[in-house]
This record gives sequence, C-alpha cells and structure tokens, in this order.
Amino acid sequence: MLTGRRTVIVEWGHCDPGAIVYFPRYFEWFDSATAAVFEDAGLPKAVMLARFGCAGIPVVALRSRFMKPSTFGDRVTIESSITAWRRSSFDLQHRLLQGDDLAVEAFVTRVWTVRAPDGGLRGAPIPAEVVALFSAEAG
Amino acid sequence: MLTGRRTVIVEWGHCDPGAIVYFPRYFEWFDSATAAVFEDAGLPKAVMLARFGCAGIPVVALRSRFMKPSTFGDRVTIESSITAWRRSSFDLQHRLLQGDDLAVEAFVTRVWTVRAPDGGLRGAPIPAEVVALFSAEAG
Amino acid sequence: MLTGRRTVIVEWGHCDPGAIVYFPRYFEWFDSATAAVFEDAGLPKAVMLARFGCAGIPVVALRSRFMKPSTFGDRVTIESSITAWRRSSFDLQHRLLQGDDLAVEAFVTRVWTVRAPDGGLRGAPIPAEVVALFSAEAG
Amino acid sequence: MLTGRRTVIVEWGHCDPGAIVYFPRYFEWFDSATAAVFEDAGLPKAVMLARFGCAGIPVVALRSRFMKPSTFGDRVTIESSITAWRRSSFDLQHRLLQGDDLAVEAFVTRVWTVRAPDGGLRGAPIPAEVVALFSAEAG
Repeated sequence: MLTGRRTVIVEWGHCDPGAIVYFPRYFEWFDSATAAVFEDAGLPKAVMLARFGCAGIPVVALRSRFMKPSTFGDRVTIESSITAWRRSSFDLQHRLLQGDDLAVEAFVTRVWTVRAPDGGLRGAPIPAEVVALFSAEAG
Repeated sequence: MLTGRRTVIVEWGHCDPGAIVYFPRYFEWFDSATAAVFEDAGLPKAVMLARFGCAGIPVVALRSRFMKPSTFGDRVTIESSITAWRRSSFDLQHRLLQGDDLAVEAFVTRVWTVRAPDGGLRGAPIPAEVVALFSAEAG
Repeated sequence: MLTGRRTVIVEWGHCDPGAIVYFPRYFEWFDSATAAVFEDAGLPKAVMLARFGCAGIPVVALRSRFMKPSTFGDRVTIESSITAWRRSSFDLQHRLLQGDDLAVEAFVTRVWTVRAPDGGLRGAPIPAEVVALFSAEAG
Repeated sequence: MLTGRRTVIVEWGHCDPGAIVYFPRYFEWFDSATAAVFEDAGLPKAVMLARFGCAGIPVVALRSRFMKPSTFGDRVTIESSITAWRRSSFDLQHRLLQGDDLAVEAFVTRVWTVRAPDGGLRGAPIPAEVVALFSAEAG
C-alpha cells in the first residue's frame, strides 16, 4: 500500500482563539494530502482530471477523531493511503502525527465523478489505469 | 430538544473548481451553527467562555455524510441540535437541507475544556447551569 | 449609487489566536458582498455568469485599511457599492462598520473575464445590460 | 535586506469555480510568509510572542495587485522582505512568482501589539532586539 507523507507547518491563521488548529483546516490538509497521494503515484490531480475527463473526486463520507490539538509553529506529518478501491468510489486513511503521536485520524470515502449532460456531477467507474498505478506500487 | 436553524448562502468562494462546496466549509458552517445553538439558548459563545472560564469546546470526534452537493447562489438551511450531554462532553447533530432534501449530515462530539496550568487544554465538567438551559427548553 | 448592506456575525473560526478576525476573512466577506451587490440589482452571480458567458470577475487590484479589530460574537455591517465602470473593469468600495464606526475599508478593482480558447481567462467588455442595471438604480 | 522564500503548491481547495486561486488565499500565504521571515531570522513567531509579550502583529494597511492567476497543481514561490521599521509598525513586501513572472505583489503594514489591561490590543514599541536581528542580516 502506497503511503504518501507530507509535512505541514501549523500557521497562526490556521488556529482559532483557543490557539489550536481550527478543525476544518485538518480537512483542507487531508484534501491536499489526497492530491499528493495521486501525484506521488505519478498522476497529478490536474493531469488526472484532464486525461480521464474526471470532474473531481468529492467526499461522500468521512469519520475523524481528534486526539491531540496542535498550535502555530508546530510541524506535523500527514500520512495518507488509499485503503480500498470499488467500482466508482475509494477509501482513504489519513493520519496526522506530532512526532510519533497520532494526533488526528480520518477515514474518507470519495467518489469518481464526471460531468452529466445537465451540468451536474454523477459517479462513474474509476479508470483501470488509475487503479493500476497503485497496484503496481503495491507489487 | 432545542433545534437551531440557520440559513447559509453558498458563495463563490465556498466552492471549488468543480463548482460545488469545498467540503471543509461545511464544517465551518457546522461550527458556527454550534455557536448559534448556544446563543439561541441564551448563552452567546463569548459570554459562555467568559462566565465559566471555558477555553473552548473543541471537536474530538465526528462523522459525516455528503448526499447532495450545493453550488454558489444556493440557499441552504442548517438544523442543529444537542443530542446528548455527558460529564465533560456532548454530542451534536447537524443537518444541512436543500429545501426538504437532506444534503449533508454530521454527528459531532465536543469536549468542554479549560486552560490547564501548563497552558494546554484539558476536559472539565460541563457546568450544570449550561446543561439546564437546554433542559428548560425541552420541558 | 446603489449600496448593498449585509450583516456578518463574526464567528469563532473567523478569528486567530489573538481573538480578532484573521484578516483574509475580510476579503472573503467583501467577495460575498460583491455578489450581493449584483443580486440586489437583480442579477444573482450564477445567473449573470450563465447569461453573459462570464467566467468570473476576479480582483486585479485592491487596497485596504484596518482601523478596528472585531472579535467572535460581534455583528458587523458591510456596505458595498460600485464606484466606477470602465470598458472591462470596475471598482468597488467596501466599508465594514461596527455600529457607526468604520472598522475596515477596501477599494477593489475587478475585471470582467471570459474563457479564452486556450482555457485561460481574458478580460472582455462588460455587457451594457449589466451596467444599465446600476444606472437605472442611480436614476 | 533579508528575503525569505517559500514554495506553495496551489491546491484544489485554494481555487474557486473559475479554477483560479480564490484571492483571499493569497493573503493567508502572505501571512504565513511573514511568520517565515521572522523564523528565518531566528525568531519563530510562537517564540517571539512569548519572549516579548507580544499579542500579535496585525495588518493595518495593505495594497495588492494580481497580474496572473494560478491554478491547482501550480508551484509558486513567495519572496517576502521587511522594507521599513518604525517605532511600533513595519512594512513588508511580498512577491508571488510563477517561475520568473511576478503574478501577485502586496505591500503590507503591520503593527506590533500588546494586550491592554481592558483585554484589547494596542500598539507598542517594537523591541530593539527584534529589529537588530534584521539589521545584523543586512550588515
């Protein structure tokens, strides 16, 4: 299983009046970490969308736990991996670490979408070429 | 059970290149809706923190489902209610509606915190006076 | 000159560890207030973009002063108006008020853009029908 | 003059439905770049605030021009430097580069603040030790 790693510097503007990370920011970082997983596999998101006519990979479900807060100046690491592939959706796990301590974790399901004729988004089968990038990595 | 209702106008800047709400924004709105629940019960967040020496009510767990995307110009309604009180934590349910359709829902657990002598945050018992505000409403 | 007015509740998540509004948030609000000016003139942004094939009205220049900070729980008013129209750009003034006190002001220039054949954005003449909406108001 | 340099990856969530950076994000980045300037000079923001009893260095004025939009997947560089020191305020210049092209620039004035007895913020003289860090660099 391919695991992408990214370091984030917690900034002043990421924190709330309690001087801890305002929790929606974690999801911004996990979203960026998702793009990084694909880029690390050789498929930057902009390239992926253009090549396969994908309109995006929106989140349809998530659950998350917040064990330890972080504050500005902290350097944290995010480890992200795709844990399951289905026909038109896939699962990711994100782990945000302070040193060796698990501070936040999230389990996210996303769907592969294309633009429908009416302009809306609808799920579509994930191209085999995309899934294969990750299988190759795991081989 | 007290249910707070708020209308949000989905703005251009809330949306991503897919022209749908960038999902961390939902959690910003649910956070604001949480403040609104307390304000509707007669206890604005700024007053609550000052009166009870509370350092914040950070999220420790959440799960969420995203059934229908929204786009800029949409007017959506958020219904929020506190569904359980425990000694130092409590649960909220948030429902984001497009008309009558449930578009997003979230179940969130938050902890009542105070500032510890070392400057960090620690859980503390929720003042009875706070809980009573909501019991009175339900009566 | 048409002046749109909007009330914003300053939320916990809008504020930084200094417990004052994190300044980029002001520009989010001024962006939303810009959409409100058009909507108040009878042309919601989503309708405007669709009807005229407009790809957006991005900011090309701004200047701003911050006289008084705001904190969570504050209710502030934003007054916005279009102060000049040119061939493909226009100017806005935004005033954020705490009661009667001017807390923040911004002067913003935006350009009317269309999608170029290469996928990029380029400036284009503002439709007379759009400008007329505001002239009628001023009449 | 000390110039800090930082690379930012433009993420999906930084962009609006026009697929270009939502402009308030630039100010988030310039705020983070400001922290980086101090850190590069040996004074991380968290340390600086604690050591000198500083409550923050809020922006009091800025002006900015946006010459070229960026989109998700772009890697941009931000060059930031402090261009003037006054008794209790200082000026920064930020330049956001796409390769060698200047895409965005901003001129920002910030004030050194301390917490007043009433809980509010007020300007205060910038400690000589802080200014000296930068003079030494320039020497």
